[in-house]
Amino acid sequence: MKAAVFYGPHDIRVNDVPTPHVQSPKDAIVKVKYACICGSDLWSYRGISSRKIGSRIGHEFMGIVEYVGRGVAKIKKGDFVIAAFSRSDGTCPECMAGIPSSCRNGGYWGVDGFDGGQGEKVRVANADNMLTVVPKSKAKGKLMKALIALTDVMCTGHHAAVCADVTKGKTVAVIGDGAVGLCAVLASRRLGAKQIILLSTHKYRAKIGRKFGVTDIVDARGNEAFKKVRKLTNDTGVDCVLECVGTKESWETAFAIVRKGGRIGWVGVPHDVPSINISEMFSENIGIMGGRAPSATYIPQLLPEVLSGKLDPSPVFTKTINLSQIAEGYEAMDKRKSIKVLIKF
Amino acid sequence: MKAAVFYGPHDIRVNDVPTPHVQSPKDAIVKVKYACICGSDLWSYRGISSRKIGSRIGHEFMGIVEYVGRGVAKIKKGDFVIAAFSRSDGTCPECMAGIPSSCRNGGYWGVDGFDGGQGEKVRVANADNMLTVVPKSKAKGKLMKALIALTDVMCTGHHAAVCADVTKGKTVAVIGDGAVGLCAVLASRRLGAKQIILLSTHKYRAKIGRKFGVTDIVDARGNEAFKKVRKLTNDTGVDCVLECVGTKESWETAFAIVRKGGRIGWVGVPHDVPSINISEMFSENIGIMGGRAPSATYIPQLLPEVLSGKLDPSPVFTKTINLSQIAEGYEAMDKRKSIKVLIKF
Repeated sequence: MKAAVFYGPHDIRVNDVPTPHVQSPKDAIVKVKYACICGSDLWSYRGISSRKIGSRIGHEFMGIVEYVGRGVAKIKKGDFVIAAFSRSDGTCPECMAGIPSSCRNGGYWGVDGFDGGQGEKVRVANADNMLTVVPKSKAKGKLMKALIALTDVMCTGHHAAVCADVTKGKTVAVIGDGAVGLCAVLASRRLGAKQIILLSTHKYRAKIGRKFGVTDIVDARGNEAFKKVRKLTNDTGVDCVLECVGTKESWETAFAIVRKGGRIGWVGVPHDVPSINISEMFSENIGIMGGRAPSATYIPQLLPEVLSGKLDPSPVFTKTINLSQIAEGYEAMDKRKSIKVLIKF
Repeated sequence: MKAAVFYGPHDIRVNDVPTPHVQSPKDAIVKVKYACICGSDLWSYRGISSRKIGSRIGHEFMGIVEYVGRGVAKIKKGDFVIAAFSRSDGTCPECMAGIPSSCRNGGYWGVDGFDGGQGEKVRVANADNMLTVVPKSKAKGKLMKALIALTDVMCTGHHAAVCADVTKGKTVAVIGDGAVGLCAVLASRRLGAKQIILLSTHKYRAKIGRKFGVTDIVDARGNEAFKKVRKLTNDTGVDCVLECVGTKESWETAFAIVRKGGRIGWVGVPHDVPSINISEMFSENIGIMGGRAPSATYIPQLLPEVLSGKLDPSPVFTKTINLSQIAEGYEAMDKRKSIKVLIKF
């Protein structure tokens, strides 16, 4: 079978790889119908994060269950399923506490003997916990783009909003106009924010932002952006900052535009983010909460609204390719020519 | 008139000071009936924080209004009032957002031309915002100790619990068995925590803790304490850590005993607390929120339950003195002979 394989920075190729088979009673084999390229795949593509040469890549996929192990109870052969983007067992104390993204027996796709999602088939361990079934009548047509967004970006944007405590009537600023940032806008609107400011200097992304619920675009960076956000918020800053980037600059921006007593919800994988000095924060009362989104928890929660069409993150996909075009897909995202790339099998 | 004056580390004396008078239309003059010594007063007493020689000290007081300026609307001469422990104007954008402890025109008592609370009279600027009236029929007898605790420690303990998101059914650990830590226990019980672990090696403090709602005492420090807390919590750590100390050790403990996906609510004034590395926290999802408690917001919220006797923090007072014994009061707290000292005028 074919799968995307990482050969080094800026070098993703389609290769023949071993066809996966059930290794444990709790495994399922999923025949992938749709997968995506994620902004976080770009960290290794750009050589910023290390990754094993020859490893499969990708962590966002959905498709049809081909085989299940004897120990799988909820998932059946033929089911159409969405996978969570990080692996968890669903039974450890962290999973039981509702934070499967910190599962003590969990991890990522494409490492430690696990398949990556950008390939024709994927072995899914702990299938009952990792997969959410989509009713077959709904698993078709236009809804597919919205459904595949649930694997990661929609749940991650939602996590930023939950961590920043977005609730009815609050003011929100979203840092990051990529797919996660745009989904964070959608999540903020869903949770009742009254003002949603998107920091974006990119016209098309800002346009999707407006469609998703943005009330104000700040098309500036650094000090100019800080001033504009403060001007939009009675000179206080926003109640909730949703940090969806993970750089030194994005965190400086977050602290500059959050109001005292406000919250920073962060989901951008941190790269060179400066340490936070608690001693300087006593009179600020700024809360910081975030990390890897517990998608195995969120997918079933958000699925009904995606199925009903009420929650529609599909516009984040601006390019569709097939697996043979994978190199082109990575390049389009790397050069910001595409917000998010869908791979159709 | 007489007031406590700071003469340097371990040197607090009672001195004659100028009697305060109304300086602005929004001022009130309060004749102090009760004041307290706070754990945070000890930072300057011990020479760890700098403080101006000759300055008045103390920020917890209540008493009877003697004069009000023309611009004071809600507070009247003769009212029995409780003061908030940090100054705020009640009108700036931060105050309007519900975080008066970050008031842009606010500050502390005993500095910047403002009286300290440990004295016979105090000028209170922005009196309508700073003072909460206690019905006269209630301002007497045993209730006084519970009421004066509202000025700071009860609100600060409550803030730790609010910041750590203590809600019904959660597991809580309180770090700090001083008055604030004990009030944090009381606040956690009030908010519905199902398990409240107090880290305390002090028998009498632990006894008050049990009275306040502690379910488990961990009488150990460092690694041994971490192990005990994990053993009490299905090997996960607690949902909510209430950090009521502010040292390197207390923060290390907080991170060691909070579960993944849990929260640290912190109110201990930080001294040499190490910086927090966000990059290490991505898979932990630990939230951090806290700082100076917005007591001007909390006092009116908590007052009805104190008046009804439902919320009774009075056992934190283990010594009562008059102003002339102030040096003895500080010494008792410094040497941990007393949890909290009440000054009766």
